[in-house]
Amino acid sequence: MPTGVEIERKFLVQRVPDGLDAGEPIDQGYLAIADDGVEVRVRRRGEATVLTVKSGPAMVRVEEEMAIDERRFETLWGLTGGRRVSKTRHLIPLDGALTAELDVYAGALEGLLTAEIEFPSVAASEAFTPPAWLGPEVTGDKRFAAQALALHGRPQDER
Amino acid sequence: MPTGVEIERKFLVQRVPDGLDAGEPIDQGYLAIADDGVEVRVRRRGEATVLTVKSGPAMVRVEEEMAIDERRFETLWGLTGGRRVSKTRHLIPLDGALTAELDVYAGALEGLLTAEIEFPSVAASEAFTPPAWLGPEVTGDKRFAAQALALHGRPQDER
Repeated sequence: MPTGVEIERKFLVQRVPDGLDAGEPIDQGYLAIADDGVEVRVRRRGEATVLTVKSGPAMVRVEEEMAIDERRFETLWGLTGGRRVSKTRHLIPLDGALTAELDVYAGALEGLLTAEIEFPSVAASEAFTPPAWLGPEVTGDKRFAAQALALHGRPQDER
Repeated sequence: MPTGVEIERKFLVQRVPDGLDAGEPIDQGYLAIADDGVEVRVRRRGEATVLTVKSGPAMVRVEEEMAIDERRFETLWGLTGGRRVSKTRHLIPLDGALTAELDVYAGALEGLLTAEIEFPSVAASEAFTPPAWLGPEVTGDKRFAAQALALHGRPQDER
């Protein structure tokens, strides 16, 4: 398995599970996205504010992250209108030393909840039995990628 | 006159004037440009490498410039294929304490030369008599803006 490959599964969530932590607010806005998939975004996660440039789909993807200060974040955030995702991320421990990242969306995406689980191996991902609070699986469904949610909003026909 | 307003005129140049300085190479590439005009570019000018975010046309334009190191510039430059301008900028002193910035383009824009002159006032810009080496004026012609040249190349019908 090449380094840097992530094995993840993603699910919709219908109801917030009990006993959640306070969560961490995440604001993510796209400054611009090129036709070839290069994207430039700003993100605030807790106190950390960064600007990230990512290449489009390719064998070797480029990702460059730069810390920016709060003043600069606020200025650049103002340029991302109509291309934003705001959510609160909760970490939920699962059996087998796994963790679900539950994202509770706000703003235009209010009502949407997704959960992502990262696995140490393909075998572990295939052996995973989703707990009852996880809804339909949307792994690989591009409509639920951050960029698609920011640009196109919540899918109408969620499945 | 509000601060920050630039009064500039731009001309095509047919022949490189005699006695030029060595000039300074400028490489500029666009990472991504949004539909509303937000653009993100990287630029190397001499030894200086920066990433700049600019808002689209608006009463108050935002421009945020961040210094990046050479390693990061090279990585990001690799994402700007098909959206680049490379040129050498020469400074040419003119009468009346004015300076022409002569840009001699290279690569896909080889053969194109433009000169820009900034004026201290509207009156000075109107009183300006172009020296003989300046060709047709293209002030305000968006086809010769850096972004347009990077994306669309040299205009076919230059005038």
